[in-house]
Amino acid sequence: MFGTCLENVRARTPLVHNITNYVTVNDVANILLASGASPIMSDDVGEVEEITTICAGLNINIGTLNARTIPAMFAAGKKACQLGHPVLLDPVGAGASSLRTNTARQLTEQIDFTVIRGNISELKALVAGSGSTKGVDADVADAVTEDNLAEGVAFAKAAAARFGSIVAITGAIDLVADANTCYVIRNGRPEMGRITGTGCQLSGLLTAYLAANPGNELEAAAAAVSSMGLAGELAWARMNPDDGNSTYRNRIIDAIDHMDGATLNGGAKYEVR
Amino acid sequence: MFGTCLENVRARTPLVHNITNYVTVNDVANILLASGASPIMSDDVGEVEEITTICAGLNINIGTLNARTIPAMFAAGKKACQLGHPVLLDPVGAGASSLRTNTARQLTEQIDFTVIRGNISELKALVAGSGSTKGVDADVADAVTEDNLAEGVAFAKAAAARFGSIVAITGAIDLVADANTCYVIRNGRPEMGRITGTGCQLSGLLTAYLAANPGNELEAAAAAVSSMGLAGELAWARMNPDDGNSTYRNRIIDAIDHMDGATLNGGAKYEVR
Amino acid sequence: MFGTCLENVRARTPLVHNITNYVTVNDVANILLASGASPIMSDDVGEVEEITTICAGLNINIGTLNARTIPAMFAAGKKACQLGHPVLLDPVGAGASSLRTNTARQLTEQIDFTVIRGNISELKALVAGSGSTKGVDADVADAVTEDNLAEGVAFAKAAAARFGSIVAITGAIDLVADANTCYVIRNGRPEMGRITGTGCQLSGLLTAYLAANPGNELEAAAAAVSSMGLAGELAWARMNPDDGNSTYRNRIIDAIDHMDGATLNGGAKYEVR
Repeated sequence: MFGTCLENVRARTPLVHNITNYVTVNDVANILLASGASPIMSDDVGEVEEITTICAGLNINIGTLNARTIPAMFAAGKKACQLGHPVLLDPVGAGASSLRTNTARQLTEQIDFTVIRGNISELKALVAGSGSTKGVDADVADAVTEDNLAEGVAFAKAAAARFGSIVAITGAIDLVADANTCYVIRNGRPEMGRITGTGCQLSGLLTAYLAANPGNELEAAAAAVSSMGLAGELAWARMNPDDGNSTYRNRIIDAIDHMDGATLNGGAKYEVR
Repeated sequence: MFGTCLENVRARTPLVHNITNYVTVNDVANILLASGASPIMSDDVGEVEEITTICAGLNINIGTLNARTIPAMFAAGKKACQLGHPVLLDPVGAGASSLRTNTARQLTEQIDFTVIRGNISELKALVAGSGSTKGVDADVADAVTEDNLAEGVAFAKAAAARFGSIVAITGAIDLVADANTCYVIRNGRPEMGRITGTGCQLSGLLTAYLAANPGNELEAAAAAVSSMGLAGELAWARMNPDDGNSTYRNRIIDAIDHMDGATLNGGAKYEVR
Repeated sequence: MFGTCLENVRARTPLVHNITNYVTVNDVANILLASGASPIMSDDVGEVEEITTICAGLNINIGTLNARTIPAMFAAGKKACQLGHPVLLDPVGAGASSLRTNTARQLTEQIDFTVIRGNISELKALVAGSGSTKGVDADVADAVTEDNLAEGVAFAKAAAARFGSIVAITGAIDLVADANTCYVIRNGRPEMGRITGTGCQLSGLLTAYLAANPGNELEAAAAAVSSMGLAGELAWARMNPDDGNSTYRNRIIDAIDHMDGATLNGGAKYEVR
């Protein structure tokens, strides 16, 4: 049950190591705290191995990728793998520059990621270089819809098999798949796309779910994705007519802060294919 | 009409490349999304030319200037100019250190900026080294007021002529000028100065307006400045007695999220000199 | 009186130089503005001496410590000391990595800090390497409680004597001590720990209080700590049932924005030991 995965985060309060971008890092920290986890941000190659050792999971996000922190991503990722910690990759903007695409691919080659989470265009860029991106947003032509859902599910499973990872592709419909099984999740609101970093926040949250649910990673990943979408729905219901995207950002994190297992079980909308 | 400039941002959804400071970057991203534009933040010299190529405009802000990102500012700026993209400079803290003043001046010498936006002290520092700053805020002695307005307008036009750029000088009264024409804009609230980064947010927004209104840059710049001030007024009207600057920050971005062309046309307060 | 210390910040509007982490930097800037001070963030070794010279106080925070900014911390700290400016150290995560522990210790050896502010585990790591941390949070085993308060007060005074600094140890009970005198402060709410960066915000605020109250540093430090806790109480009283940690963050900064000397005098809860 998704609710149990959530309750495990609250009970186990995992410490999550984040090497992430400076755009959305504050919201990532606050959503981790809202979930019951603890964040630590550390990106210097001189300390990341030590830091990740005291943590329960590692979240690598390339949203403001730069030469200073790339070696830290590899060092921390390899150390976390050695220790058996779950490691997540958020390949923000893969497809938008060679630096991002190549670094993301090299990371997948050298690190055994538990989950790779991105939009459909980023995942296509990772797999085959065939995705086009609009900066850090998915290209409309790539979007997973009800009409091309079977194709999307097949792609997610194939990508998962290719990387030996769980793949979480988020958009209007979210897909969370390993090579054999795909959760199709229909929580969320389109207005979440008007807030910077809901994807980054989800990646942090997802890492906490992985860290708190060892041995049950696929369901934990699906639960995290569903909880983020449900938070978007609950937060939207609390919006006043003049509230906009900045207030919506706060209310989504607030909704994660208040969510319990029963709420998630009651609100989760998904099927397994 | 200012409203048309705003509607063009919503219709054309320009992707804006930001090389900006890590203090206010999240708010810059959210206000760009609120306006209908899309942000991408990228500051590594290894990718900025590629990133700016897929964008429609470039926003360079020196708020946390450092040796790592200076080369990226020059590389991205030159590439954007070659491509005919609008490029904006926000010389945060010019006058406060030699590094900032000199880097900002070198940027203006090597890059053909569409708009230079700052407070009056920063612009004076850029022009003649005569401005004094109080950190990142304008010196009171420099302020443009109703009493010295003619002088301020003349300075703005002269600075615009000097740099071959539109100059946007923001403060209690905002001036947006090219060498011949100056918009004098009286939107805004003094309380906006108690929020970090309203200037940085405006620079991001302004770049989106430039990108969505090619061939009409002066009016687009004035429209962006007016819309930010109007958002400050509309947001202030929604404040509860115990709300303070953090809530005000959210409400201003919310107001941009809800603003349409008719609202801007109705609320804009300006004259042309 | 604590209220006078607060009013001095509003009257003197000190410019505070911050070399701080990119996680919570926006909130640090906004809380400084809320208090009546002005923030400037600058971390490049090529400008920090110039920047700190025009400021009235320096806040050094190692929350995202990295090789690029370490030399800037030493250069700015030494310059600020030469100028007689108050300098604060926030040793975020000391004890969590050798880089953090060693850098924090070297900073204390080479710079004469006015105040060192951290949680109990960070201070223990600084003093003797005996503290254990849970990332950037204090270890429960280290916590200062009513039961071990005498021991905590003795530790704070001893640490202050050791470093020749005021020591501010924040937690459920806050201790602000020099070698002879310790303020025991009981303002605050446990829910403040679910927001990222309330400690970082306090360090910025505390530096403003020091800068505005020369010659009265111990009381000023205690006043700043009390005001932050009181803001947490006042903000909590304004929370709606569905509000969570993100909204709470905004309301705390809002409460600082509205606080005056009389409110602080009326709400401060402390004793001197």
